[in-house]
Formats: sequence, structure tokens, C-alpha cells
Amino acid sequence: MNATAILLIDCPDRRGLVAAVADFLYRHNANILHADQHQDNEQGLFLMRVEWDLAGFDLSLEEFRRQFARIADQFQMRWRLELSALRPKVAIFVSQYDHCIVDLLYRQQSGELACDIPLIISNHNTAERIAEFYQIPFHLIPITKENKAESEAQQQELLRDKAVDLIVLARYMQILSPHFVDQYPQRIINVHHSFLPAFMGAKPYHRAFERGVKLIGATSHYVTSELDEGPIIEQDVMRVSHRDQLDDLIQKGRDLEKVVLSRAVRWHIDHRILVYNKKTVIFD
Amino acid sequence: MNATAILLIDCPDRRGLVAAVADFLYRHNANILHADQHQDNEQGLFLMRVEWDLAGFDLSLEEFRRQFARIADQFQMRWRLELSALRPKVAIFVSQYDHCIVDLLYRQQSGELACDIPLIISNHNTAERIAEFYQIPFHLIPITKENKAESEAQQQELLRDKAVDLIVLARYMQILSPHFVDQYPQRIINVHHSFLPAFMGAKPYHRAFERGVKLIGATSHYVTSELDEGPIIEQDVMRVSHRDQLDDLIQKGRDLEKVVLSRAVRWHIDHRILVYNKKTVIFD
Amino acid sequence: MNATAILLIDCPDRRGLVAAVADFLYRHNANILHADQHQDNEQGLFLMRVEWDLAGFDLSLEEFRRQFARIADQFQMRWRLELSALRPKVAIFVSQYDHCIVDLLYRQQSGELACDIPLIISNHNTAERIAEFYQIPFHLIPITKENKAESEAQQQELLRDKAVDLIVLARYMQILSPHFVDQYPQRIINVHHSFLPAFMGAKPYHRAFERGVKLIGATSHYVTSELDEGPIIEQDVMRVSHRDQLDDLIQKGRDLEKVVLSRAVRWHIDHRILVYNKKTVIFD
Amino acid sequence: MNATAILLIDCPDRRGLVAAVADFLYRHNANILHADQHQDNEQGLFLMRVEWDLAGFDLSLEEFRRQFARIADQFQMRWRLELSALRPKVAIFVSQYDHCIVDLLYRQQSGELACDIPLIISNHNTAERIAEFYQIPFHLIPITKENKAESEAQQQELLRDKAVDLIVLARYMQILSPHFVDQYPQRIINVHHSFLPAFMGAKPYHRAFERGVKLIGATSHYVTSELDEGPIIEQDVMRVSHRDQLDDLIQKGRDLEKVVLSRAVRWHIDHRILVYNKKTVIFD
Repeated sequence: MNATAILLIDCPDRRGLVAAVADFLYRHNANILHADQHQDNEQGLFLMRVEWDLAGFDLSLEEFRRQFARIADQFQMRWRLELSALRPKVAIFVSQYDHCIVDLLYRQQSGELACDIPLIISNHNTAERIAEFYQIPFHLIPITKENKAESEAQQQELLRDKAVDLIVLARYMQILSPHFVDQYPQRIINVHHSFLPAFMGAKPYHRAFERGVKLIGATSHYVTSELDEGPIIEQDVMRVSHRDQLDDLIQKGRDLEKVVLSRAVRWHIDHRILVYNKKTVIFD
Repeated sequence: MNATAILLIDCPDRRGLVAAVADFLYRHNANILHADQHQDNEQGLFLMRVEWDLAGFDLSLEEFRRQFARIADQFQMRWRLELSALRPKVAIFVSQYDHCIVDLLYRQQSGELACDIPLIISNHNTAERIAEFYQIPFHLIPITKENKAESEAQQQELLRDKAVDLIVLARYMQILSPHFVDQYPQRIINVHHSFLPAFMGAKPYHRAFERGVKLIGATSHYVTSELDEGPIIEQDVMRVSHRDQLDDLIQKGRDLEKVVLSRAVRWHIDHRILVYNKKTVIFD
Repeated sequence: MNATAILLIDCPDRRGLVAAVADFLYRHNANILHADQHQDNEQGLFLMRVEWDLAGFDLSLEEFRRQFARIADQFQMRWRLELSALRPKVAIFVSQYDHCIVDLLYRQQSGELACDIPLIISNHNTAERIAEFYQIPFHLIPITKENKAESEAQQQELLRDKAVDLIVLARYMQILSPHFVDQYPQRIINVHHSFLPAFMGAKPYHRAFERGVKLIGATSHYVTSELDEGPIIEQDVMRVSHRDQLDDLIQKGRDLEKVVLSRAVRWHIDHRILVYNKKTVIFD
Repeated sequence: MNATAILLIDCPDRRGLVAAVADFLYRHNANILHADQHQDNEQGLFLMRVEWDLAGFDLSLEEFRRQFARIADQFQMRWRLELSALRPKVAIFVSQYDHCIVDLLYRQQSGELACDIPLIISNHNTAERIAEFYQIPFHLIPITKENKAESEAQQQELLRDKAVDLIVLARYMQILSPHFVDQYPQRIINVHHSFLPAFMGAKPYHRAFERGVKLIGATSHYVTSELDEGPIIEQDVMRVSHRDQLDDLIQKGRDLEKVVLSRAVRWHIDHRILVYNKKTVIFD
């Protein structure tokens, strides 16, 4: 697979936008592999993702940035350029439930997730052995009420040290402080074990069981300073019945959590997600 | 199809329960067609549904009631006996959206719903033509803030007059008074156009759209005096994406509402539902 | 809603394609509402659907055709232009099972299907009453082994007479002759009551029941001269269990058939489908 | 959790059956935890699964077998008694694709699968490291056309040696000989990477891709001497679109294969499956 570039754009919708972008890429000999766009006609917004093969492309990245800036200014674009050759660095945070991290590590190692995982941070040692199996540095940082600020400082130093691009909360049962969250806007993905906005907050399976729902769900979303209110990336559900006790819900839910979280991570890594209006666009 | 009897039981779980019921039915020559039971071991509850062919059964219904009462007393059963030959009488309430009522009427007429529909009540005339097509009496009872009590009295008189067993709110957009609801415990089925408990109350599609969910849902439930809090009978969901505007959600949701409501009505009519702990058991 | 134009293109993938189309539309002041494209990199194919508001567009359709032909030639495009103002004329064929036609007629009347239905053709009279309810001409044309050619001739005359654009086989249980099919390439949609290619041919529910599948399905597809081999437009499935008897499969399947067929009809009518390599692209 | 006994019965349906079984269990002080039954009225068959707590049960297993035989004879039952305390011994066969075995090993270790896994057999060494991680003996037995009989003999000796109860083919790409299969009736579970009976045999994803299906599936089933024709245990599907290339189908399908196979293994281990008429009953 050749190295590719990915351009992500959002801006007010205006005539000539696509023509300007397509013409620019054509003049510089881009071989477009995928392009997807979304227009929110109600809000007058235009969002685009275009990916091209860098072989034959006649601009260096620096030149691209300089030259494309003119078009971007003209159309008031927010934009960014990503390179498939730069594998994102992903940190995984985990507590005691290890099904999601076990799943993510396998997917990364098997090539399904095109990222590097330079570190795992946990407040328990449950995931230590599997981290070792995949030869990923494991950092045990216990959290107590007293040491929370200090522990977060320690976590952030590790993240900076490894130049981490994305944090994945793989059933990490601690709430990150707003200060922490603010440093990683749209770069922290969490999985919540309910179909949001149903059962926000603690013990969603218990509450689903008590309510007698006929489907249970899981949701992956970007973390914001408002708990369980961040932009939703993916959701899925599974049928349950009166025969399912609380333990069955928890067990069935694990399969949902794995799928919903791993899809979110893959789409983020593949630069398929744009956030606007507290919602996500997932480009095909 | 022969006439059948359906016995529904719930009681504290105790040894000898199944033996006692099975032995009683055997001694009276019941040819059992379906039996399903559920034990909630945590709560120590036992629930059962058994259906048998009345051909060859050697007790009249009166005798059954008298003789079975002894077993029922011994095991502290709540129980009821239903007869397939007695088709439940169902009233449909509807407002302006007519997709659910159109669907229900077709299903009834095609034999999928083994009930009679002696009347339709509406605060709009939208459904009048289709009621006429299926030759079902249609009662237009407009509701205003001022006439609400009076209108409900009028509705209830019609229901009593037709000896209605079940009320189906097929996108009926008025809230029934607690007084009304109390007269029909577990005999009013509503469809709510969200995946409860998400988006309880008004305008669920609008709020789902704003929240940016990736699946929309619908829920059928028994109506209690607490809005959207009654025992859930059935739920289903459908995938949506950022491309779906509010109108698309509303349109896609219609297919969910029809399916979720009609299943609930069928299960109720077939005497497959028991309520306990604010939840439903749906017997197979 | 303003009148819109929809341009559908497929051609060999080449650099400059999008730029040429986008530039052309921009120069003529098109306000693009939706655009979606698909590249099959393996086959080197490019497919596109673009829809724009005709208000402000500075070309007449005739001029469009003349001027766009230059671009089309240059890139060896197959293309067509559709107008939202021209509602497609749809004929529905039906036999005895009427659930699909009842569903389609309601969807058309409620505005979900932006088409006209100038006639219904059937070899049984089951659907006659519902046709009358919706005031659609109903033609009873019985089919026997002996009169098949003659009956088809009669059907085709009716279709020509009404200038029908699309034929929908809504559980029409007769096999159209190859001669008939050839006259309506990609303009006949059928629903098959199985998850194709499983259970092609006759009695799919019977065979699904015998095989003991755990999900049943339905498939809508374009009709070609090879039975059940045409390009698949949509499929869906529903869970069944050992408790479901053949009748249950048939009943549950009806809900699948309706949904799968109506989606296919809507996408066709909205000019969202392109066929290539015996497969369909469904533009968003 | 206390030790439990599970009784599985199938026999011709007759009055008095449930009464006889329930009365027998009651007289011996069985505390029934779960009971489920299925009647196939068409075929006149009765199938039952009942599970009870062994605490307080007043028969030894030997006595149970002797005394229950009388009832069994009377009703011509095929029956077996299983004990939750006896964890089934499961052998996993695998080739190069390791996602299913990685998934199964995690589920076993986390307690979701109540079995022991005394050995893994493979014709490749891909799974060797993960076997070691979970400390399970790994046997590399390469298969060639020439050594097939010999290799199978070697496999069977290992299976006998470990007294294996169930063989799970976790994407094992070799076809077992009829002789092998016959020794393990209803004790070999395979996962086929399609929605059977669609795409039986080789390369199902390739064929699904070529056919242009809109959903892909996976199927777990008991292995019989007819390839891909054994009784289906579980199936599931996932939506795909024209954007999904062959590689995407293969990747998405992996998640289906894992779920569908692990459910089948769990149900088998929990003694929830009865086979009749080449179909499975899955007791709740």
C-alpha cells in the first residue's frame, strides 16, 4: 500500500467549493482514492474527506500547506492534512475489566488498527500480563481520592513523553478531571456500557435490568468535560429477554463494548471522523 | 384450529409446583400444546403459561375454576384462565399520524391479530376513511384543554358499551388522565417513538437528532400513570447516520413503531405477557 | 421543495474527473445539494451521483445535454440526467399475497414514495378493493399455461399505454418471460422471500424451515432473465428459533418483505441506484 | 454456585409426560432451577431440559439412572443426565486464522465458558504463542495429501488420551474424514464464514463479494459427513455496502465468526442443545 494523504475540511457551504478543491488536487496530479462529503443544508455546512495516493503528487507537504491555505482562506475552511505513513500513537487506559483491552491489542497486532500503542496505563494490575504478551510498556498508577491530581499529572507526563495522539478509555473506571480532558479535545475515546443517552452515569447494566429493557446497548464517544455527553461515534445493541439476569446482561454487553469501541478507534485512526454541533460525521 | 385454554400463573417458587399443575391437567385429560415457564431465582418467583386443547378436556370452565382454586390456594398463586375462542375486543386510539393504525387494521383483517376491533376513537378525522374501509365504527372526539374530562368520560362510555378488553394507543398524542389509566391496568398499550428510557416525553426524534445518536428506536409498553415509565413489552432499533436529517429519522422510525406496536398487541392478545416488578415476561 | 436535477455517471476512473464535473456545474451556477461518489479502485471505475437545485442554474436541460456531452465524451462516461419534477410512473404487479402492495400504496399516498402509480396488474382479484380505496386502476389478467404469451402482451400494452418507468413485483408469483424482462432492463424490481443466494427458486420459507436456519431473510433485486440472479438492492433478516413453525416464518417474513421492497422502490425512484458488475451501488 | 444436574429428554409427545417427570423430581426433593420444553406438534415430538440443584436431592446418580429408566421406558424417551460439576473437555483445532481461538481462550479463562481446554491441535504454528500464554498444550500436526490418514490417527490418539468431549473447529481449514466425524456425532462444532446455506464450501467471502450481497453472515453448526450440511446452531449477519471491498468483508466477518462460534460452544457446554430432524433446539 502506498503512502496516502488525507484532507479533512469543514466550512460554510458555498458554490464552487468542490470545484476549487478538486481542481487544486488535479493540477498537482493527485490520484484520488476515496472522497466523501457531507452537506448539512439546514446549517449551511460543508464537510469533506478526500484521500489520495502520494505517488505522483507534485507538492511537498510544506508546499501543500502554503498553497492550499489560499483556497482555505477564500472559503473559510477549517482543515487538516493527515498522512497514512504517520501511525497515530495510542495510549490505552484500563481498570479491572480487561475484555476491551484484550480485544484492542489483538486487533492492533493483527493489523486491523493502523496505530502504535506505546503505553498502557492502569489503576489495577489486571492487564499487566497481556501487556507483557504484546510487549507494551505497562504503567500501574493507582488512584485514590487523595492522590488523584498527582496521579493525573503522572499520567500526563507519560502521555507527553510518548507524544500520544489518542487516548482510549477501555473500561477505565475513573473520571478524568476537566483539566485533563481539556488538553485532549476530540482525542479521548470512551466506551459507555449503555445505549446513550439512556442510563448515563454509574451502573448502567443494573439500571437496564431494573427497567426491564428488551435490548441492551453500548456507546463509544469522545470525552468532554460533561460526563457521557460527548459526541457519539458508534452505538450497537443486542436483544435480551426476561430470562437474562443481571450477569447475563453484563456478559452479553461485553461483546457490544468491544465492537463499538474498536470501531470508534479504527475510524479515528483512519481519520474518518469530523465533529460538528456536538455530533460526529463518519466518512465512508 | 381447535379451541384452547390458556392458564397464566405467578406465585412464590416452591417445590412441587410444576408437578401439581401438570398432574391436575393430566388427570383431566388435557392435551398440552405449549408450556413455558420462568423462574426468577433471585426473587423466588415462578411464572408459567400453559395452553391446552379443549377437545377431550373433561372439566367445564366452571368446574376448572372451582377445582383448580385448591391448588392455587395451596401455592398462593395469582392466576387467570383465558380462552382462545373469546376474541379480545380492542379499541384503537389515534391522532393524526395514521401509519400504526393502518398497519394494525391490515394485520387484524389478514388474521395476524386474533381480536375484534369494535371501535376507533380519534381526536382528528385522519383515520376516518381507513376505518370505513375496514368497516369499523369511528368516533371523532376532539380534545381541548377545556373539554378533556368530558371527552374522557365520553371515551370511557364507548369503551364500556363495547366491553373493550384492550386499548391500543396507536400514536395517540393525548395524555390519558390517571383516573382513566387506573381503570385499565395492564390493558392499555402505547408506542413511544424512542428507545426508552432514552428520550422520554415530548419530541423524541428531535432530541435524538440533536444528540446525534447512531441508532433510533421505538418502544411499546403498558401505560401507567407515570408517563413513559410503564412495563416495556418490546423495543427495536434502526441504524441512522449523519446523512439522516430529522425527516429521515421520523420516516425510518415509522417502520419501527409499526413493528414494535403490532408485536405487543399480538402478544397481549395471545395472552403471552405477564407483568411483575414493573417488567414483562413474554412467554414463547 | 424546489425542483432538482440528478446526474448519474459511471466511467473509467481518471484524474481530473471530479474537477471537470464540479467545474462545469459551478460555471453554470448549480447549487449542489447532495453529492456522493464511489471508486472501485480494483476495477478502475468511478461512479457518481450529484443533485442540485435548479433554481439559479443557468442551463436549460437541452443545453445541459449538449454541453455536458463534451465532458462525457472526454471521460467515456455513461450518464443520465433525472429531474425530481418528473415523478416516475410505477406499475405494481401482485398475485394473492397483498401485504406488500398494501404497504406500497400507503407509502405512496403518505408521500414517502415520490412516484405515481397509474395501474395495478394482477392475476387474482385480491388487491382489487385496496386499489379502489386508493383510486388506482386495477387490471385483472389471469395467467394460465395456455394464455401466458397473450397475457404478457396485454400487460405490456397497458405498460406502454401508461408510459410506465418501473415495474414492481410485489409478491407477483408468475415468472416473466425473458422477452418481457429484456424490455425493462433494471426497471423491474422483485422481492424474493429469502436471503439470496440462499433458497433461490420456489418455496423459500419451506426450505428455510426444513434446514433449520436461525435467521430468515428477504431480498429485493432487479429482475434479469436468470431467476433470482439479478443485482441485489437490499436485504434484511429477522431472528427465528426452533419455536417458530413454518407459519411463523411466513408471518415474520412478511415484515421483512415489506421493508426490503419499499426501500428498493424508494431508492430507485430517488435515482440512487447504479448497477455495475451485476451489483448495485446505493448512493447516500 | 451449587452443583446441578441437567436432564435432557426427547420422545414422542404424550399426555402425562410432564406430570410424570415433574412428579418424579418432586418426590426426590429436587429444587428445579430452570426448565424449558418444546413441543413440535406437527411431528408429535416432545423435548425438555430441566436443571436442578443437587443439594437436597435424595438420589445418587446411580439410583437416579435406575429409577428414572422406568419412566423413560414408559414414554420411549431418549435421555441423558449431565452434571455441572463435570466440566467438559474441549479440544480446539485451528489453522492460520487465529481470531476465533484467541477469542475462545479469553472467554474460557474469564469464566464465560465453563470447560477445560486440555489441548490445541493445529497444522500451523500461528496459535502456538497464545496457547503458551494460556498454558495450554499445543500440538503441531502438519497435514499434507500424503499424511492425512496418519495425521488424523495422531489427532484422534491425542483426543482419546485427554478424553475430549467436544472438538471446536476454530477456522480449521482442513476437512475431517467421514471416519473421524463419525466418531464424534454432535460433538464437533464448526464455524462457516457465510450465512448457510448461502455460499457453502470454499471461499464464501469471495463469492459473497462477487454476488453483491448487502449483508454478510457466519454460521456455527455441528459437523456431519456432508460438508456444511450439519445442524445449524447459531447464525448472525452484518451490513455491508458497495464501499466494502473483499478485505472489508473478511475483516467485518471476523467479528461475526467469533460471536457465532463462541455462543455455540457455550450452549453446547451448558447442555442447552438438542438435535432432531437435522435441526437444533436451543433451550433457554
